[in-house]
Amino acid sequence: MRNRQVLLVSRPTGVAQKEDFAAVEGEVRLPDEGEILVRNRYLSVEPAMRGWIADVGNYSAPVAIGSVMRSLAAGEVIESRHPDYAPGDLLTGWFGWQEFATVAGDAVVRKVEETDLPLSLSLGVLGINGTTALLALNRIGQPRPGDTVLVSTAAGAVGSAVGQIARLLGCRTVGIAGGPAKVAACTERFGYDAAIDYRAPGLAEAIERYCPDGVHVYFDNVSGAISDAVYPLLAQGARVVVCGTASIPDWSDWPVGPRVERHLLVKRARMEGFVIFDHAAEVPAATSQLAAWVRSGALRYEEDVLEGIAAAPDALAGLYRGENHGKRLIRL
Amino acid sequence: MRNRQVLLVSRPTGVAQKEDFAAVEGEVRLPDEGEILVRNRYLSVEPAMRGWIADVGNYSAPVAIGSVMRSLAAGEVIESRHPDYAPGDLLTGWFGWQEFATVAGDAVVRKVEETDLPLSLSLGVLGINGTTALLALNRIGQPRPGDTVLVSTAAGAVGSAVGQIARLLGCRTVGIAGGPAKVAACTERFGYDAAIDYRAPGLAEAIERYCPDGVHVYFDNVSGAISDAVYPLLAQGARVVVCGTASIPDWSDWPVGPRVERHLLVKRARMEGFVIFDHAAEVPAATSQLAAWVRSGALRYEEDVLEGIAAAPDALAGLYRGENHGKRLIRL
Repeated sequence: MRNRQVLLVSRPTGVAQKEDFAAVEGEVRLPDEGEILVRNRYLSVEPAMRGWIADVGNYSAPVAIGSVMRSLAAGEVIESRHPDYAPGDLLTGWFGWQEFATVAGDAVVRKVEETDLPLSLSLGVLGINGTTALLALNRIGQPRPGDTVLVSTAAGAVGSAVGQIARLLGCRTVGIAGGPAKVAACTERFGYDAAIDYRAPGLAEAIERYCPDGVHVYFDNVSGAISDAVYPLLAQGARVVVCGTASIPDWSDWPVGPRVERHLLVKRARMEGFVIFDHAAEVPAATSQLAAWVRSGALRYEEDVLEGIAAAPDALAGLYRGENHGKRLIRL
Repeated sequence: MRNRQVLLVSRPTGVAQKEDFAAVEGEVRLPDEGEILVRNRYLSVEPAMRGWIADVGNYSAPVAIGSVMRSLAAGEVIESRHPDYAPGDLLTGWFGWQEFATVAGDAVVRKVEETDLPLSLSLGVLGINGTTALLALNRIGQPRPGDTVLVSTAAGAVGSAVGQIARLLGCRTVGIAGGPAKVAACTERFGYDAAIDYRAPGLAEAIERYCPDGVHVYFDNVSGAISDAVYPLLAQGARVVVCGTASIPDWSDWPVGPRVERHLLVKRARMEGFVIFDHAAEVPAATSQLAAWVRSGALRYEEDVLEGIAAAPDALAGLYRGENHGKRLIRL
């Protein structure tokens, strides 16, 4: 049985481009004792992959050159020598950008229980993106009814969930996104009270106009110039969720920006980083809650599905070109 | 009865200098109904006064030009037309840089209960500085036994208390201070496990050497280049207490520095601003705890006492020249 795989072959300083990956083909390895063989159905494409590839300080060791690109995937067990898994089980896990994965049990993130919903959701709104949105918003953002919650990459896989969950919790929601189509998706599809196009002039003025009481919660996926416009408009006691730094192409030449300390002091505000992998114990309950909202129609999502593993090498670069609408996946 | 007062007469962009103040003399005004007349014994001099004077965003309205310089002071009630206060009561409050204050009851911060201890302490280790140290360290720093707690302006009025309290809580303490005398005070007087002179070369290397497990709590009073050396060395889950920004002379031309977002994300770290005036309800219990530590000898302090109100106009500038050792006060 042949296995097509996508390897990381060079380490870029910025976003990995098509040329940094290579497609190879080999034999599927049968599982040893304690391992399972998974046929991947969906591969995930995340903004965070840039960090997983980079050699600069991150929350995990960088993907080794010449190895299969690290990725979450959703697939079906086709052979098992592990007591917890049986053929036919649907799983998400660290299965990589490849058609088949032969892995130990610790590569599994979870069994997919929501078999009434599309499997692809287990990588997005019911996966890393939705659970990040819910847990980071609750733990760090601590939104109270009536708060103004401002979200960057507001139409993205995490941001769109944050906006909708904040609204379910009784908050006023304001989204920041790039370009008219994403701005329209914010208000028309994801229920934001207002949305701002950061590519249009007057970003700070627009934030001030739509957040007249200041920003109580800033859920940030970008850092950079967008965040610089937000900090002076934080409300007293504001919480900033640092969830991503998508606007910074490269931290090997560390960028400067306006200092935040004075804003934090004067507003008694808090900034805190969030990485979902620290919160495994809370993921099952969060997933159930998200699934219930999806079933009831309270939580909408958007997917951007590429076809076939040949789409993988350019998929991450495309994400950073902003060409996707919603969670980017590769269907095998 | 004559009252000598120090007025703010111009608004500097940086630190207020001697010339920005003027000494005047007038008649003491007798209290109206609901007011008290206080004879000030000690006037306080705080780094935060720079912010109270500045026209740029702060946590209180700027001191008006031509008015008595805003200041905490400790004094004795000599006449009262307020039901809660009687002649002979010792009080701290917003009594200003003047010999006598005729004020309403809401200018009082608290009655001094620790009459067995020197009155001057009510403005320092038992006042704004000590309570800031204890409450900010506990609420934001959340130190756990074995944590490494790094403190900037470590020999100062707030920092010296932070270091000692952290040590009482079972932490390893590392101080950063300017010049050999303050560095020596850190280890010899305030019990720091190690102290670093930020004026010597190799600040980042020294922090790394003395904090081999990373910095779990960074109690920051300075911002700027010192903090920039600390952020890359934060431990996972670190807490940064943003208590002051003493190294930044002027926020009207907003300074830039290395971005902090990536550090906060990668280390899942938190930064939060603290202003003691938000925590009035917790001050009495904190003061009792601090007084108990002072009585037992567990909490040491240093005072830098200037004599007479004529010392006031240059007292703040001198603080920023770093000439004080410990809490700066003016004795009347």
